[in-house]
Amino acid sequence: MSVTRPAGFAASGVAAGLKSTGARDLALVVNRGPLQHAAAVFTSNRAKANPILWSQQVIADGRVSAVVLNSGGANCFTGAFGFQTTHAAAEAVGAALGVSPGDVLVCSTGLIGVGDQSFRDAILQNVPAAADALGAEGGHDAALAIMTTDSHPKEAVVEGEGWSIGGMAKGAGMLAPGLATMLVVITTDAVLPPAALDRALRAATRVTFDRLDSDGCMSTNDTVALMASGASGIEADEAAFSDALTALCRDLALQLQADAEGASHDIAIEVVNAESEDDAVVVGRAVSRSNLLKAAIFGNDPNWGRVLAALGTTDAAFDPYAIDVSMNGVMVCRSGEPGDDRELVDLTPRACTILIDLKAGDATATIFTNDLTHDYVHENSAYAS
Amino acid sequence: MSVTRPAGFAASGVAAGLKSTGARDLALVVNRGPLQHAAAVFTSNRAKANPILWSQQVIADGRVSAVVLNSGGANCFTGAFGFQTTHAAAEAVGAALGVSPGDVLVCSTGLIGVGDQSFRDAILQNVPAAADALGAEGGHDAALAIMTTDSHPKEAVVEGEGWSIGGMAKGAGMLAPGLATMLVVITTDAVLPPAALDRALRAATRVTFDRLDSDGCMSTNDTVALMASGASGIEADEAAFSDALTALCRDLALQLQADAEGASHDIAIEVVNAESEDDAVVVGRAVSRSNLLKAAIFGNDPNWGRVLAALGTTDAAFDPYAIDVSMNGVMVCRSGEPGDDRELVDLTPRACTILIDLKAGDATATIFTNDLTHDYVHENSAYAS
Repeated sequence: MSVTRPAGFAASGVAAGLKSTGARDLALVVNRGPLQHAAAVFTSNRAKANPILWSQQVIADGRVSAVVLNSGGANCFTGAFGFQTTHAAAEAVGAALGVSPGDVLVCSTGLIGVGDQSFRDAILQNVPAAADALGAEGGHDAALAIMTTDSHPKEAVVEGEGWSIGGMAKGAGMLAPGLATMLVVITTDAVLPPAALDRALRAATRVTFDRLDSDGCMSTNDTVALMASGASGIEADEAAFSDALTALCRDLALQLQADAEGASHDIAIEVVNAESEDDAVVVGRAVSRSNLLKAAIFGNDPNWGRVLAALGTTDAAFDPYAIDVSMNGVMVCRSGEPGDDRELVDLTPRACTILIDLKAGDATATIFTNDLTHDYVHENSAYAS
Repeated sequence: MSVTRPAGFAASGVAAGLKSTGARDLALVVNRGPLQHAAAVFTSNRAKANPILWSQQVIADGRVSAVVLNSGGANCFTGAFGFQTTHAAAEAVGAALGVSPGDVLVCSTGLIGVGDQSFRDAILQNVPAAADALGAEGGHDAALAIMTTDSHPKEAVVEGEGWSIGGMAKGAGMLAPGLATMLVVITTDAVLPPAALDRALRAATRVTFDRLDSDGCMSTNDTVALMASGASGIEADEAAFSDALTALCRDLALQLQADAEGASHDIAIEVVNAESEDDAVVVGRAVSRSNLLKAAIFGNDPNWGRVLAALGTTDAAFDPYAIDVSMNGVMVCRSGEPGDDRELVDLTPRACTILIDLKAGDATATIFTNDLTHDYVHENSAYAS
């Protein structure tokens, strides 16, 4: 179901030959209205793929009729030819659906530098088939078609009062291999204006996808798109919608974390009692990017010194010699000194929680990351070969 | 020779029982004058070990009589007891040598959180033996005693006009395992005032040790100390001394990089034509911290897309779509598009150069890093167990 759960949407996923396996690799999600309201957020990487450059223009007026997505090539750093390919893909979708190409978002994922004539041909020649395959039950096929190294499709649905939200996502957790892009398409049949959708989407992504930092590597192609059909006829309360959207985004974000192929631990870094939420995020992110800590967690080693060494590199407000650090419930560092016996920490479960008490205020944030494993190294050294 | 090459210095390295192997683990380097001028730089991590907190006070007046260094425990996050241990170590050295404890630098390396009574006892009880063992040929023993996972001691000498500079360093390249501290002691018999030593040391470390970024993890204990005995009686030209000191520091820094146990490549990231040197450093550092790129280099994969994705996360001045990237001499990305055939790149040698032309000015900087390997993960997951 996912993106086709809300009324007013159709989707499809077909095989265009971009994946050497012959699996589905081209997806369409269409908003049949009556409204075609939308919002989207994109990677903040300055190295942006051609589909990002295109889609940023499309979303400017808050109106989107369809999203076309492909795996098998990121169409990034492919020059003017690559941008023309993105444009042509939107034109092809426009022609097949009878909508304006300027209302078609384009998303691509795969290797950077891939976007040649054969890539273009595969997409353009198969857009009609994707349009023919559109159906109100097509959400699952679309979710399959955007997978790269994902072990399974990621889908989620949240029900509101008379309306619903559906979403699909791709991404292999570690944001690896191959800078695997995070692509997320979310649909709703609630009645909401574009500005409200934009507010709700930014609020939701800020505390969900933006707090997923598997390996510190930011993609060139990340996109989260939200489309509202208004087909339920129900004007949603904006606060209720925002909460529901955040819940759906958290669900998808945790699915991405849990499908980290190379990972053996899902690590939640909870920073509490920070002076500000920004400080909590800065500290959590610094800790989440410590290769030394991530390798220790892989080895089930509660090496709290690596937590303190990582947060000491930030300029957040705290006294490093006052901090408490707990791992899976055991306070291994108390007020900057060795605390309870580290032998008490059980790191064998996949879920791992590192609780950091900064004792500097009352703000909180959680960053979601993964451990650093042999499989991570293997996946990312072998991907392009 | 190393630190005992310049006239006026004696050194020793003894076994104090801090290393379970029984190897040398306590070192002394003494400046017998006539001058006792000094300068030092320390980790900028806010999580500083007790020896750093102590030594920052010692160096304030530019006068140092001796440095005592131990492996086998970082004495970091060990509270007031740990600070008292550092203080007591300086007192013990002062008593053994007849110098002021306030002129004794203390350096420690090993696991964070290690610094209990037995650690204190091992140091204090063995300082007299280290003092007894002091000799004008003791530099090598001292270099051995500060090793942790280093495969060999790092030493270097540069000859000036009538004076010389000697240095020793420890660090396992990847700044791993266990946040392995970088400790560097440099000696000279040139006649120079403390202020000139400080200027020369900051200038040298800024372009050598500060540009070594093996795994992005900053230690709590890093120290680079420079002592001048004036025993040559030669007033060195400050510019010539500064150049010689920079050459010595570069030599030691590259020895640290090359001894990265887990690493299979030494990677030089040369950023050219940046608008400013700061920009060049920011870009080089961002690229050096991309786990995806580092895993690709491990796999001999010239994955230039990962270079661009990493530099796109910075706010340095450049047009991402104008950049050239060469790997080992092959321009794989030209003006932000695929360049020469990536199959031409030979990444089998240990030395790897990634040249990034930002086309934004005429400033340059090189960051030295290593690849991300299975051995890195293994070393750092298994260290504490």
